[in-house]
Amino acid sequence: MRLAISGVSGYTGLEILRILLNHPRAEISVLISETYAGRSAAEVFPYLTNLVDLKFERLSDVVLEERCDLIFCALPHGVSMSYIPPILKRGVKVIDLSGDFRLKDFSLYESWYKSKHSAKDLLAEAVYGLPEINRDKIKNASLIANPGCYPTSIILPVLPLLEAGLIKAKGIIADSKSAVSGAGRKAETSYMYMECSEDIRAYSIASKHRHTPEIEEVLSGFSKEKIKLTFTPHLMPIKRGILSTIYAELNGDVSMSDIEACYNSKYKDERFVRLLGRGNLPRTADVTGTNFCDIGFDIDGRNNRLIIVSAIDNLVKGAAGQAVQNMNIMAGFPEETGMTSIGFQP
Amino acid sequence: MRLAISGVSGYTGLEILRILLNHPRAEISVLISETYAGRSAAEVFPYLTNLVDLKFERLSDVVLEERCDLIFCALPHGVSMSYIPPILKRGVKVIDLSGDFRLKDFSLYESWYKSKHSAKDLLAEAVYGLPEINRDKIKNASLIANPGCYPTSIILPVLPLLEAGLIKAKGIIADSKSAVSGAGRKAETSYMYMECSEDIRAYSIASKHRHTPEIEEVLSGFSKEKIKLTFTPHLMPIKRGILSTIYAELNGDVSMSDIEACYNSKYKDERFVRLLGRGNLPRTADVTGTNFCDIGFDIDGRNNRLIIVSAIDNLVKGAAGQAVQNMNIMAGFPEETGMTSIGFQP
Amino acid sequence: MRLAISGVSGYTGLEILRILLNHPRAEISVLISETYAGRSAAEVFPYLTNLVDLKFERLSDVVLEERCDLIFCALPHGVSMSYIPPILKRGVKVIDLSGDFRLKDFSLYESWYKSKHSAKDLLAEAVYGLPEINRDKIKNASLIANPGCYPTSIILPVLPLLEAGLIKAKGIIADSKSAVSGAGRKAETSYMYMECSEDIRAYSIASKHRHTPEIEEVLSGFSKEKIKLTFTPHLMPIKRGILSTIYAELNGDVSMSDIEACYNSKYKDERFVRLLGRGNLPRTADVTGTNFCDIGFDIDGRNNRLIIVSAIDNLVKGAAGQAVQNMNIMAGFPEETGMTSIGFQP
Amino acid sequence: MRLAISGVSGYTGLEILRILLNHPRAEISVLISETYAGRSAAEVFPYLTNLVDLKFERLSDVVLEERCDLIFCALPHGVSMSYIPPILKRGVKVIDLSGDFRLKDFSLYESWYKSKHSAKDLLAEAVYGLPEINRDKIKNASLIANPGCYPTSIILPVLPLLEAGLIKAKGIIADSKSAVSGAGRKAETSYMYMECSEDIRAYSIASKHRHTPEIEEVLSGFSKEKIKLTFTPHLMPIKRGILSTIYAELNGDVSMSDIEACYNSKYKDERFVRLLGRGNLPRTADVTGTNFCDIGFDIDGRNNRLIIVSAIDNLVKGAAGQAVQNMNIMAGFPEETGMTSIGFQP
Repeated sequence: MRLAISGVSGYTGLEILRILLNHPRAEISVLISETYAGRSAAEVFPYLTNLVDLKFERLSDVVLEERCDLIFCALPHGVSMSYIPPILKRGVKVIDLSGDFRLKDFSLYESWYKSKHSAKDLLAEAVYGLPEINRDKIKNASLIANPGCYPTSIILPVLPLLEAGLIKAKGIIADSKSAVSGAGRKAETSYMYMECSEDIRAYSIASKHRHTPEIEEVLSGFSKEKIKLTFTPHLMPIKRGILSTIYAELNGDVSMSDIEACYNSKYKDERFVRLLGRGNLPRTADVTGTNFCDIGFDIDGRNNRLIIVSAIDNLVKGAAGQAVQNMNIMAGFPEETGMTSIGFQP
Repeated sequence: MRLAISGVSGYTGLEILRILLNHPRAEISVLISETYAGRSAAEVFPYLTNLVDLKFERLSDVVLEERCDLIFCALPHGVSMSYIPPILKRGVKVIDLSGDFRLKDFSLYESWYKSKHSAKDLLAEAVYGLPEINRDKIKNASLIANPGCYPTSIILPVLPLLEAGLIKAKGIIADSKSAVSGAGRKAETSYMYMECSEDIRAYSIASKHRHTPEIEEVLSGFSKEKIKLTFTPHLMPIKRGILSTIYAELNGDVSMSDIEACYNSKYKDERFVRLLGRGNLPRTADVTGTNFCDIGFDIDGRNNRLIIVSAIDNLVKGAAGQAVQNMNIMAGFPEETGMTSIGFQP
Repeated sequence: MRLAISGVSGYTGLEILRILLNHPRAEISVLISETYAGRSAAEVFPYLTNLVDLKFERLSDVVLEERCDLIFCALPHGVSMSYIPPILKRGVKVIDLSGDFRLKDFSLYESWYKSKHSAKDLLAEAVYGLPEINRDKIKNASLIANPGCYPTSIILPVLPLLEAGLIKAKGIIADSKSAVSGAGRKAETSYMYMECSEDIRAYSIASKHRHTPEIEEVLSGFSKEKIKLTFTPHLMPIKRGILSTIYAELNGDVSMSDIEACYNSKYKDERFVRLLGRGNLPRTADVTGTNFCDIGFDIDGRNNRLIIVSAIDNLVKGAAGQAVQNMNIMAGFPEETGMTSIGFQP
Repeated sequence: MRLAISGVSGYTGLEILRILLNHPRAEISVLISETYAGRSAAEVFPYLTNLVDLKFERLSDVVLEERCDLIFCALPHGVSMSYIPPILKRGVKVIDLSGDFRLKDFSLYESWYKSKHSAKDLLAEAVYGLPEINRDKIKNASLIANPGCYPTSIILPVLPLLEAGLIKAKGIIADSKSAVSGAGRKAETSYMYMECSEDIRAYSIASKHRHTPEIEEVLSGFSKEKIKLTFTPHLMPIKRGILSTIYAELNGDVSMSDIEACYNSKYKDERFVRLLGRGNLPRTADVTGTNFCDIGFDIDGRNNRLIIVSAIDNLVKGAAGQAVQNMNIMAGFPEETGMTSIGFQP
């Protein structure tokens, strides 16, 4: 499969490159960057020397449909929606890692992202690229809206329980802790070493983060009641990883075994969801550099409440790895192709 | 005021020493350590050279009542309850930083700490040393049970709202993130640099942490209903600090201004509680090395839920600083004496 | 003593504020910042709330000579040389923390800093503010050129040995490791959390760093031969601290005791230089937040070479602390006034 | 190729496992651990779940010669020398990652490691496994002594210049900065998060580290004069990586181009040595997770001294990666097989 990547200069774009380079059936044929056009990848990113032998090109200089079958777009929100339609018209499939095509309801997009949506007609066609719930649609899609990092870490553990009616739709809380890479490669004071090291902070609390409607829209599709999540993101002094601690009220008399059975039934054949045994809890270090979502949980019997902890690498299962998983499905490759390596632990 | 410290070789004991050394009216007269007895503090801890000119002594070698007015006991849980009674009998006041005298109900202690309580008779006399709620009792106490670190970060922001009936007693959740120093100075694999750096993990979830009954007992005293908290501690790769994110259901139609008014009424004269303005949120870096508890909050109107974020330094307001604040009250000093310095930021 | 600080928004300026606030005889009367003029310190830096009750002012709005006796200038290189002369004319003493007045030879300045020096006439009058070697001159100075951070960590351990002829003037090498705060509060990609965490790098190698001529000029004043140093700075993922590892050839048959005797003779009464015993080596953690320079050493007998290791806090003994030490000397206070607290360890 | 690993529970053993799992022609057939015998790898190390489906076995329970062609021994110094001889007798090749077979001169071993060598007869046969200098001998070896981490980072950049006579044999200094993983997985107070974070320290200074004779013996083989190195290791708060800053006197009139030509001639066909262009310097982050040794340098013309900076991942090119490179040579595979992936950057 011949592949292009656009937006390689951000952490997500570079991570797609990292994974594809280790993929036995992927051929990276085009790297697009308007900023670095004309320069070699190894010149711009010296750590790629002896590993990547490609030059950055300008989109307008490339006849995409002749050189690739699929393009990964790791561009900022708001840019993708004008960038992608002409590419689709040329017959090239697209996996978009921005937020532009994730919400089916364009009015939600416009109110949360505070800008007009210029490609509403594509929203119906775009497939939300969470393989564990949308595998069949992904297979034949032309445009994949790759899920957000926080949503992936929350939807995967919550959805099966909601679908099975084991937890109440009302009152779900997700308290998520993210690595600094989630903020992207921007030279902002807030993300300086001096500001992030030895600091823990919350931000966009009271469900003001843009990933809130994404989580709600997806989960509501699997629930009788509409989901109204309380979501709190936090910034942690680590380079990669999201740990989400999720609180949900149990729906009546539900046991640990009921939860286990539900998860097993949903995920027992999933390569990238790992259910930890009783007493074990996820750690971001255990998934760093991998496409896994680790899930652990326990019941607070005194409050009839379930506490779930999930861990993903925000750049892999939360972005680039999930994108490659989607590509594997679209290409008919085994889903784990290129992602069977051990991560960055220790 | 002449002071002794017992258990100086742990992080909490060393922190008491750090604060007292900067205290204009405190005289450190005795340092007790069975392990290091006979050696100078600067020999054991080279960073104390030119700062502390004292030797460690064995408790049995010291006539405490002749050399000090008050002793800080920074000993492990289970040790304090046999260590302290003879000291009290000699007429020396005690500020205990262990968990041994925090719970009024000894049966709670015995079930959560899984050992018999050998000094039950002192539980009634022991005063829970949270100055913001117990100032008057602290003044004349002989035995102070210094609060736990997590409880301090949770009780301070929750108590006024509960007392005022602005939030519901049922369903409160505290999701706390702690520094590694909370685990003490033990050479355990779990707390090695290689295991903690680049890792985020939860532990003792489903309200299994021993600080749970402490928080509940104190808060229940200010609530019509008994409190059953859901509490989740997490381990973060920082050296100091706790950030607690707290979720509570609002009691009917409560506005941001109502919350602000409640906090202001309770804390406007408190030197060590800082209420942040709207839109501002606490960061552990802002309180590191200080005795402050910073509080910020916002309302998730869609769920009629309040989200509160608090930050303390677990070794200061969560331990040693609070102990010195208690001592100041007992000695009749202004409460902030010795703790008006800027912390470790930047 | 009434004091002003200019450039409080950088790490060095904030550190002067931190130290002075804990100084029993210092009164901070003016905070100057063109950027933040009109706003309160606590509004700009929330962590100062309840600690600092001052507003930032514009220099042109302040009659300095009426409101302070001395001003600390924590301004960028190149700015100080035009900022300071008018202040001196008003009769206000100045401690300058930039590199503008450190080199006696203006041609060195112009070639290393690549710009004209506009206040050459002040160079003779400016006193290099390293108290351990210049105490007498500092006492009566009007303008102090506060030493650079790297120079402080290298000059203190090297000078006595050079002066005593125990090491050769030729061939000295200083391999220094610095915290990220040394780069200042600039939003540059190189100093982002994502770029600095889990990274070690060298920069300005082959003695190209601007601190090279400063170290050489000072040391040459204590040596028969002119010093030509090989100096290599490195960037480390810590917030504060410099560790310098220094290599020098022994001048003939020199023993550990000779080195110890030399250091003792020079530094035995120095409050801020700590000579570690044999087998002990400095750690940056031991001096973080303090004005100490810790020194340890050993002889590589097989090569007749001395290896010295020194540690300072780059923001304290390497900048703000040394500035306050200078102020104490100028004011006739005991030199350690305001700096007898334990640092940020643990 | 069927492979066994002994000592999988340390960081080096786990890293061999990580690399081999990504190796297209390697089959891991046996994992030996006396501690964990009988348990599955994924049970002991949960992050291996879904990646490694093997159980730990006791050496005495395995007929090695029937199940593997080669064994990697990642055992402590002193253990290997009694563990390995019986394995060699069974006809199984060995790559030993301890220090036991690195020194040809057993008396050096006995004086530096302070214990008797019980397998001196194997020292002549053991091949020092640095492929860039010993490729031909490695090909047919039965026993490889895999180089130490510090030696690899120092020998690779120094050897070509010494061999070509561009630098003087006398007076070479290596100032090395290492990650905490170099200390292994031992629960010692010195390597706790609280002790290592925000700290920089030197240790074993004055060439007292055991890697000193290893570096000297190898380099002396390429020099007319015997090498007596000054070597200073340091501990840095990172998980992986060594940065070595090396100082050497130039042998007369040597230019940057001379150095470049020398390196190019030696390393232009080496896949794992990357020579950085002028003005570029190595960073540990650029090699983390890879088998590269990055080299940069500059001349301090004022002292006619060369400064070289090298960076490796101590667990990869400094241990496990180099071991696999050796195995590739022994098996006749292309040397980079299994190690063409991008590392852990960003």
